[in-house]
Amino acid sequence: MNITVDRTRILLDTIKRLLRRGASAHLHKIINKTHAADLAVVFRFLTLREQEAIFNLVDDVEHEAMLFSELEEEILIKLIEDMPAEKIAGILEQVPKDDVADLLGKLSDERSKTLLDLMAREESEGVEGLLRYDEETAGGIMLPDFIALKEDTTATEAIEALQRDYADIEMPFYLYVVDDHGHLVGVISLRQLVVVTPHTQLKAIMATDVVSVQTETDQEEVARIVARYNVLAVPVVDENNRPVGIVTVDDVVDIIREEATEDILKMAGAGEDLVESQSIFRSTRTRLPWLLASWIGGIVAFLIIGHFESSLNKLVYLAAFIPIIMGMGGNIGTQSSTIVVRGLATGTINTKQIWEVVFKELAVGFFLGFFYGLLLGLVTHFRYDLWLLGVTVGLAVMSSMTIAALVGSLVPMAFARINIDPAVATGPFVTTSIDILSVFFYFQIATILLRL
Amino acid sequence: MNITVDRTRILLDTIKRLLRRGASAHLHKIINKTHAADLAVVFRFLTLREQEAIFNLVDDVEHEAMLFSELEEEILIKLIEDMPAEKIAGILEQVPKDDVADLLGKLSDERSKTLLDLMAREESEGVEGLLRYDEETAGGIMLPDFIALKEDTTATEAIEALQRDYADIEMPFYLYVVDDHGHLVGVISLRQLVVVTPHTQLKAIMATDVVSVQTETDQEEVARIVARYNVLAVPVVDENNRPVGIVTVDDVVDIIREEATEDILKMAGAGEDLVESQSIFRSTRTRLPWLLASWIGGIVAFLIIGHFESSLNKLVYLAAFIPIIMGMGGNIGTQSSTIVVRGLATGTINTKQIWEVVFKELAVGFFLGFFYGLLLGLVTHFRYDLWLLGVTVGLAVMSSMTIAALVGSLVPMAFARINIDPAVATGPFVTTSIDILSVFFYFQIATILLRL
Repeated sequence: MNITVDRTRILLDTIKRLLRRGASAHLHKIINKTHAADLAVVFRFLTLREQEAIFNLVDDVEHEAMLFSELEEEILIKLIEDMPAEKIAGILEQVPKDDVADLLGKLSDERSKTLLDLMAREESEGVEGLLRYDEETAGGIMLPDFIALKEDTTATEAIEALQRDYADIEMPFYLYVVDDHGHLVGVISLRQLVVVTPHTQLKAIMATDVVSVQTETDQEEVARIVARYNVLAVPVVDENNRPVGIVTVDDVVDIIREEATEDILKMAGAGEDLVESQSIFRSTRTRLPWLLASWIGGIVAFLIIGHFESSLNKLVYLAAFIPIIMGMGGNIGTQSSTIVVRGLATGTINTKQIWEVVFKELAVGFFLGFFYGLLLGLVTHFRYDLWLLGVTVGLAVMSSMTIAALVGSLVPMAFARINIDPAVATGPFVTTSIDILSVFFYFQIATILLRL
Repeated sequence: MNITVDRTRILLDTIKRLLRRGASAHLHKIINKTHAADLAVVFRFLTLREQEAIFNLVDDVEHEAMLFSELEEEILIKLIEDMPAEKIAGILEQVPKDDVADLLGKLSDERSKTLLDLMAREESEGVEGLLRYDEETAGGIMLPDFIALKEDTTATEAIEALQRDYADIEMPFYLYVVDDHGHLVGVISLRQLVVVTPHTQLKAIMATDVVSVQTETDQEEVARIVARYNVLAVPVVDENNRPVGIVTVDDVVDIIREEATEDILKMAGAGEDLVESQSIFRSTRTRLPWLLASWIGGIVAFLIIGHFESSLNKLVYLAAFIPIIMGMGGNIGTQSSTIVVRGLATGTINTKQIWEVVFKELAVGFFLGFFYGLLLGLVTHFRYDLWLLGVTVGLAVMSSMTIAALVGSLVPMAFARINIDPAVATGPFVTTSIDILSVFFYFQIATILLRL
């Protein structure tokens, strides 16, 4: 079922065995014919000493550079800690500039400057340009290398330019066309260039409805655009519509993955990054604060129930319904907030639709609450032969579920509206307030209906 | 913040206004210069009549075909219901074959056959080939059009072939090289072809470590491979290593999105698809079954508490601690299962690591339980001046959180191991069993320690 993972597992086992045996020659051979992406996964499961041993066996600087690109940042930072700066700089010259900028952004200013000074001028300038932008914007993730040609360039001239000036471009699948002022006016794919007659001018074949993004566009938005228009790369333009870089689809794939993971983990209050190498201590620390919200909510629920102590004293088995009333509310609240948070993330829900979305969830919550409330009411009635108790717990489940659907949809919509990340705010806020409200309404209904 | 969505909203408002006014000429102009991907989003918010009116204004068949590709399946199926079969077949000939196969797979066998018969033979044969594969495998999502050339072809011959035989290929960025038996032996990117000397043979420049997938490889696995190796397309081979199609990165982007959404929704028991056009009734029905698990769990918790009724009678404020003990358990359980389910989905966790992962979660659960249990114990002690009650609730929180972390990590790992989708099984199973276990251990501890 899981080919990639299984293959990596076999590779990892082999490498560990050879490391134990000290079989350098064999190890050397395996490492140099393994894809850097696979080695990067293996590195996650090795100690720093083992990682260093393997890295030293990599033959050419290009393979080293690919490994730099593929390694998780945390692992890479530790790995280069004791490496001579000259060696690092030499490797970084071969690494795509967006990855270099990401790495340097994580190092101390001093170390980052040292490395930039050691790199070839042409490379370091490109990287410095990227470091100016926020890491999570189009400017922060773009590659500054792209192909821009004038409108009157012919197909033959374009191919020549490609061979002469743009031999180093990572993904030369689109050629961008600019006017005399450098403004982006069109785009041509490499395949179009290959199939037209040699003297055709670019302006005759270019598409003029270029989808582009601004340097400060959020990376999630960039990902949405690439996904929607099915393009392999999107050009990034400055405030004057002059191209300054491109974001390629392979980076977008990573962004979509990361953003989805981030949203899922944030909603569960389990941090932002899925770092498996995280220690037990660190994992505990990440998850501690979110649970505090839930702890405080529990204390409030405790105080509410304490407030109704005299009612409870008169009818002690009211307590037995607490789990089902809280549980039903909590679960439907999670459904509602999940649907809204994911809808906002993928763009199927718009913040302007707030009342439409909330009303729909409220209606769904009401119907589901009616169904499960009736079910519980009937069961209770037949068990205790007390129809008023049945009505009480039935109404409690119904109100709990309706309120939960309301809170679960309204809170993320409202947060998104005022530009607070709905995923991070939703988890603790929604769960805790639903717990409190459910318990309060339950005892309030019981006290009134049962005259306790 | 949300450029794409806002732009679509403006477009939608304009189109709706023009439809109301019956301003066909103006509408015609706007529709024919709007990207099909944007129109597809607008269609979500229109009635069938409005959709038909707009579709009839689209000028050329290529634009119609792009709209077919972009529209959500449900919308498209309704839209073509009353359309003449000849017209549909004519449009389908221009739609990428993987999208055609997806659509026909959803129609009745009879209708699907009629449409295939009306399509040009060349097109329908390709589609029929795809219909043989499961929709969620590489075979089901691949495009059957790709470029395969012999090893001794020269660069010039390859470019000629590209212009002559492969003018219709959607994404000709890679050329695959096959040996005399048609087996896949290498890959060359179009850009390499453009920069080498004309007489170079493909075998001299091709890369021989081609990453490929089998026709029956699961689409999630295909997505993982494309993401890991940063390729624009991955070739799909049959059991004899002969290329039969390619999966392109733009399809992978959609798959990653969908799979992430599916996992998130499944875990919350809110269905599998984020369909905003879903009616309140349908949405209620989708969410009903999952809540049943939680309802039954609540009834079991109710019976357990009923079993301890005499204890409760003696110390009624035991009830007030139920929400905090259940809440803390539920929340940490959600954290654990989320981390595990997402880790399995992205491949950072391997099913073989079951004990490693479960042990880590257990340790984290124990430490967090110790912390919050101690906190609650101290608060209780100072509030009631009853240290035994403090110890009881402290131990209850600790056991609830430890058990929850154990169940929350063990259940999805175990399900994944026996090839049951961990996302779908985790939600109801984990939440419900944690509720029950928490309440049981709480009252058990209370009865023993407080001698009730």
